[in-house]
Amino acid sequence: MTDPASGNFGDRLERAIREKQSVAAVGIDPTLDLLPPGLAARGASGPEDLASALREFCLGLVRAVADLVPAVKPNIAFFEAFGLPGLSVYRATCRAAAEAGLLVIGDVKRGDIGSTAAAYAAGLLDCPRLPRRSPEEAEPPPGEALLGPHDALTLNPWLGSDSVGPFLARGCGRGQGFFILVKTSNPSSSEIQNLRLAEGGTVAERTAGLVRGWGENFRGAGGLSAVGAVVGATHPAELNRFRELLPDAPFLVPGYGAQGGTAAGVVPAFRPEGGGTVISASRSVLRAWRGENRPDDWPGAARRAVLAMNAEIAAALKAAGRRGWR
Amino acid sequence: MTDPASGNFGDRLERAIREKQSVAAVGIDPTLDLLPPGLAARGASGPEDLASALREFCLGLVRAVADLVPAVKPNIAFFEAFGLPGLSVYRATCRAAAEAGLLVIGDVKRGDIGSTAAAYAAGLLDCPRLPRRSPEEAEPPPGEALLGPHDALTLNPWLGSDSVGPFLARGCGRGQGFFILVKTSNPSSSEIQNLRLAEGGTVAERTAGLVRGWGENFRGAGGLSAVGAVVGATHPAELNRFRELLPDAPFLVPGYGAQGGTAAGVVPAFRPEGGGTVISASRSVLRAWRGENRPDDWPGAARRAVLAMNAEIAAALKAAGRRGWR
Repeated sequence: MTDPASGNFGDRLERAIREKQSVAAVGIDPTLDLLPPGLAARGASGPEDLASALREFCLGLVRAVADLVPAVKPNIAFFEAFGLPGLSVYRATCRAAAEAGLLVIGDVKRGDIGSTAAAYAAGLLDCPRLPRRSPEEAEPPPGEALLGPHDALTLNPWLGSDSVGPFLARGCGRGQGFFILVKTSNPSSSEIQNLRLAEGGTVAERTAGLVRGWGENFRGAGGLSAVGAVVGATHPAELNRFRELLPDAPFLVPGYGAQGGTAAGVVPAFRPEGGGTVISASRSVLRAWRGENRPDDWPGAARRAVLAMNAEIAAALKAAGRRGWR
Repeated sequence: MTDPASGNFGDRLERAIREKQSVAAVGIDPTLDLLPPGLAARGASGPEDLASALREFCLGLVRAVADLVPAVKPNIAFFEAFGLPGLSVYRATCRAAAEAGLLVIGDVKRGDIGSTAAAYAAGLLDCPRLPRRSPEEAEPPPGEALLGPHDALTLNPWLGSDSVGPFLARGCGRGQGFFILVKTSNPSSSEIQNLRLAEGGTVAERTAGLVRGWGENFRGAGGLSAVGAVVGATHPAELNRFRELLPDAPFLVPGYGAQGGTAAGVVPAFRPEGGGTVISASRSVLRAWRGENRPDDWPGAARRAVLAMNAEIAAALKAAGRRGWR
């Protein structure tokens, strides 16, 4: 199923982690209160200036962390909050990240019936990774208007196989991957995900079984599948359990930092041989300029926050006698 | 919690059903193969012409059914599939429907952690219902760029209360409503939703209990809540069970027609006293011109499909000795 030109997403993720010697994925989730004062002031004069300030913030973050992390994870909600101009900034952010050599994980959490899932997949997976940009080109290339490019997406499993299948069919063969929401980082995630089943185990554990099945035909040369799981950093004991249930799935672990996830807590997400996971942090990186009280050097502050996060995770892995990457 | 200017969504829905003497909600889900030949030919000449053809199709559908139905339900996936120009058509479709006096149910199926849900809610609920359009107005009014306007949204319950709360807090007090995906219409919906729990009942039934709790503080004068449920027309026996569990919730019942739902099958969705539900059909209405082999009169064909659907449901209700609306 693998297109040799692009490779399996599991292999691409492992390679990116090894090249960067880092497992951090920066969540690019811009809100007005995260904008440093200079940009916030510029953005206050009207909708177009606001979009331009958001764009500068997001693209500046991408440049600041590009050599330090394997991936970025923009959450489309924070762009949709600013309407169509915000979604245009989302697209610009994905492009800038792809051009900087980063994997782009679109945090879109889509889930719908099969025919609708196919429409979402077309809109979110077909944007070309590096569109041609020659000035003679009058007509934009196909897919130029689409959201992305995306190397991976997050998906919601509530509707079952029908809702995931069209994404896998369209993307896995050309190097794209998927992280299914198995156990989310938020407090009320237990309300449905942790319900105990009559057959034993929990709803989330049964969902992990579905994810394992979905990923079986999409393993890369290194063994890691293109179909992975989201498991929150805020549940270390469950991380351990889900790694047992999903030995070959890439993990996307959100909730580090602002939501309370710790370096020691994310150690169980790693495969025994190292790698296989990215740990994402959003607010703790984007608002790092506040903690340092250096609003003018917000890119430097973001960079230092990522370096600190990497160092914390490396130290926690070492303390646990575990490897971060191969 | 109710803003008297707009009223509770449950009351607004009942009023719209009564005024139109109809419970059909037309799902506006445009795909290339649903475009009648004239529009398809125009759309083939480039991305801008395609967006213009889609716009004409969607706005023509709204005009065709405006006096026959209480609501339309555009699914944003089918617009996102055409990128930013497609999302601009989504916005135009919502506006045209609102200006025609229809309730707009945005089928967006969002679900994310609390802080992200708040961002989605801002983007999807704050678009003004009737933006000012005077030509002197240089600056667009606040919210002009946002997606909508929406009178209701569909939401995914997988992440629990955190993910739904920000929507209810923002929208219910000003007349907006929400349909939570309790039991979806697709074949694989049983994989997670029908799992049996150790405590008895199914995951979907437990989810119905959550929906009941979420809606308790948002009941209108007529008793119907602003917080409802999506229950597929493809599961008549379950519809009956969910109506018992959720006596005061508005139901949105998709899957009628193309997905196999029948008029007799949707009878259990109605409240014993009548009303409380809308039945949605998408493909069977949008492609009605094909069945009639009258591609030039696609608006008329859509209109006749809606009239037929209304008549079928009214006959099934009568046969069951039930009332459709008060």
